[in-house]
Amino acid sequence: MKRISILGSTGSIGQSALSVVDAHPDRLQVVGLAAGENAELFAAQIARYRPAVVAMGTSSAVDRLAGWRPTGATMAGTGRDGLVAVASHPAADLVLCASAGTDSLEAVLAAIELGKTIALANKEILVMAGGIVTAAAKRCGVAILPVDSEHNAIHQCLHGRDASELRRLVLTASGGPFRGRSASDLLKVSPDDALQHPTWRMGRKITIDSATLMNKGLEVIEAHWLFGVRANQIDVVIHPQSIVHSMVELVDGSLIAQLGVTDMRLPIQYAFSYPERWPATSFDIVRAGRLDFEAPDTEAFPCLRLAYRALEGERSLPVVLNAANEIAVAQFLEGRIGFTAIPQVIEGTMNAHRPAEVATLAAVREVDSWARQYARELARAVELKV
Amino acid sequence: MKRISILGSTGSIGQSALSVVDAHPDRLQVVGLAAGENAELFAAQIARYRPAVVAMGTSSAVDRLAGWRPTGATMAGTGRDGLVAVASHPAADLVLCASAGTDSLEAVLAAIELGKTIALANKEILVMAGGIVTAAAKRCGVAILPVDSEHNAIHQCLHGRDASELRRLVLTASGGPFRGRSASDLLKVSPDDALQHPTWRMGRKITIDSATLMNKGLEVIEAHWLFGVRANQIDVVIHPQSIVHSMVELVDGSLIAQLGVTDMRLPIQYAFSYPERWPATSFDIVRAGRLDFEAPDTEAFPCLRLAYRALEGERSLPVVLNAANEIAVAQFLEGRIGFTAIPQVIEGTMNAHRPAEVATLAAVREVDSWARQYARELARAVELKV
Repeated sequence: MKRISILGSTGSIGQSALSVVDAHPDRLQVVGLAAGENAELFAAQIARYRPAVVAMGTSSAVDRLAGWRPTGATMAGTGRDGLVAVASHPAADLVLCASAGTDSLEAVLAAIELGKTIALANKEILVMAGGIVTAAAKRCGVAILPVDSEHNAIHQCLHGRDASELRRLVLTASGGPFRGRSASDLLKVSPDDALQHPTWRMGRKITIDSATLMNKGLEVIEAHWLFGVRANQIDVVIHPQSIVHSMVELVDGSLIAQLGVTDMRLPIQYAFSYPERWPATSFDIVRAGRLDFEAPDTEAFPCLRLAYRALEGERSLPVVLNAANEIAVAQFLEGRIGFTAIPQVIEGTMNAHRPAEVATLAAVREVDSWARQYARELARAVELKV
Repeated sequence: MKRISILGSTGSIGQSALSVVDAHPDRLQVVGLAAGENAELFAAQIARYRPAVVAMGTSSAVDRLAGWRPTGATMAGTGRDGLVAVASHPAADLVLCASAGTDSLEAVLAAIELGKTIALANKEILVMAGGIVTAAAKRCGVAILPVDSEHNAIHQCLHGRDASELRRLVLTASGGPFRGRSASDLLKVSPDDALQHPTWRMGRKITIDSATLMNKGLEVIEAHWLFGVRANQIDVVIHPQSIVHSMVELVDGSLIAQLGVTDMRLPIQYAFSYPERWPATSFDIVRAGRLDFEAPDTEAFPCLRLAYRALEGERSLPVVLNAANEIAVAQFLEGRIGFTAIPQVIEGTMNAHRPAEVATLAAVREVDSWARQYARELARAVELKV
């Protein structure tokens, strides 16, 4: 029996994770759950999975939460403190970090210090604090198992191969809803257009990130930290069908790829079951039929190029990239700036930043705050120009 | 430095193997070479690679061989004896069996008994004597490394995974030159038509086997012996581009695939370098562009179905399948029987055979002789009807 805590249980990944628990009731037990604002769904999850410890994003969310007291669950708190408490519960063997943004950074570090396995579905944590988190995991002998389908695929392809065998990673990208469009085609796209992802059903922020290719850019940075490879060893290839979840090229030119359904339950289950594998539905490549591969267009989608620039610059630049992107995407979703202004805001913020070391969480948070503030101002300037 | 003997050095695989030696002169040394009838090419190979021991198929071939004496090589003999001597040379660490047919069966067994690693590019040996060969390898602690691109791919995909993780193997097949044709379309195809393989450049016999899909059938049987899986755990999928060399499906529905150039030097080098990997040219999936997958048509290509039947029947039936196929293909190449008569001759011979145990090489050879004789007669009867 593996005992798990889930940070972000009402989100898309959290819900998929709980359906993996449903499929393996003899193998998985929920110890802790943390959610943000969705009190209605969270109440139902608490009633069903009977966790020992729970937390929500805000006290107003807790106020709206009904019926949890009779289950005997402990309400551990709100915000980052609540996340830390759920991640640190002594009974948890594994913590799935599926919350968006960087709120769970401290919680992940706390779980690592306690020797708990981390299943990581959150990109921002490694983008912002990859050096801090991976150093802690190494020091504590803790495995960070990637849940993102791409990194999960690479984990499966590497499967204990020696690092000397590896030439490069090849991350696949669906290309999002605007694949094939030129930069000028993208001037007029609306949030609704951008929210129509062709192959994956996900949250709003990550869906926009997929449309700009920033999602892939963040994954490039994440891959650097997870697999210890340099920027020039990570390639991105557009693969519209999202069947090949990613590949590794070995030194002899042999590519090892992982393929499967576009269903997040598969990589989540892999992370929960690792190093074992548990049965799930078979995959028929003949039904997929056709797989295409093309080079990404970094003219029309400059976010990918910006992410490589941030990774190559290292130090604080990925923090700036991520923070500015969060602000720009939020402004776009609110209809305040256009789609092509997203990379403009990010690049402008990166240009205004003087990269520095970020060896502590405090330093990370400081750069993050500065970048958000700067990006907000830049977005306002763009908005005024529209 | 790995020291190798090559059985079948003047054939397509043998020549590719020597070009792998050319690419890694600091890692590979040729100890022994054996060829069939091509004295001219063999003389050049001896002069260039300076093996300690050599052999040819017949004494008339040896008579035609010029210039080998001054190299100091020992002429070990002809026929099976010559092959055994080249495979058994004390200096050889690894024996590449790249000769066609079953002549090198004794040589492979001799090398196994001496503890030499086997790189196996020959299908017939496992099809005819898989039980005998794999039992000997197990007893002697010897690795049999598959060189066929499909099995080589599966070896790379499994990469030490536990057998309990494996659900099935998925062998890819180009579909050959007649993919998409109906059974009636195939009545009039000529040997020249059948020798036009779309993706791989190979010898004549294997090229015809690719056109009938018998090549894939033999590979299904080979996979059974190499990887210890049952017939119902081996699937075949048509993949015209031959970029995905084969796949494994794990129990959770995750597919692991190996992709690369259609160049036999890659799997040969893998077998030579294993468990290391040596550098070779990078592979660009974007240049491949598009990959297709479809189900095989066993109505138009009954040989695949016959191979499954032989494997399920086990015992002597695969020997009969292989022997009858060799005769039928030879008769087709000589223009004596039509393309669609190939499976008819094989099926007729299988139907006439009463399966029996084949625990010794003598028993295998006896069934083989009977099947060849019977298939020859059947082919003559078909020929008369044309």
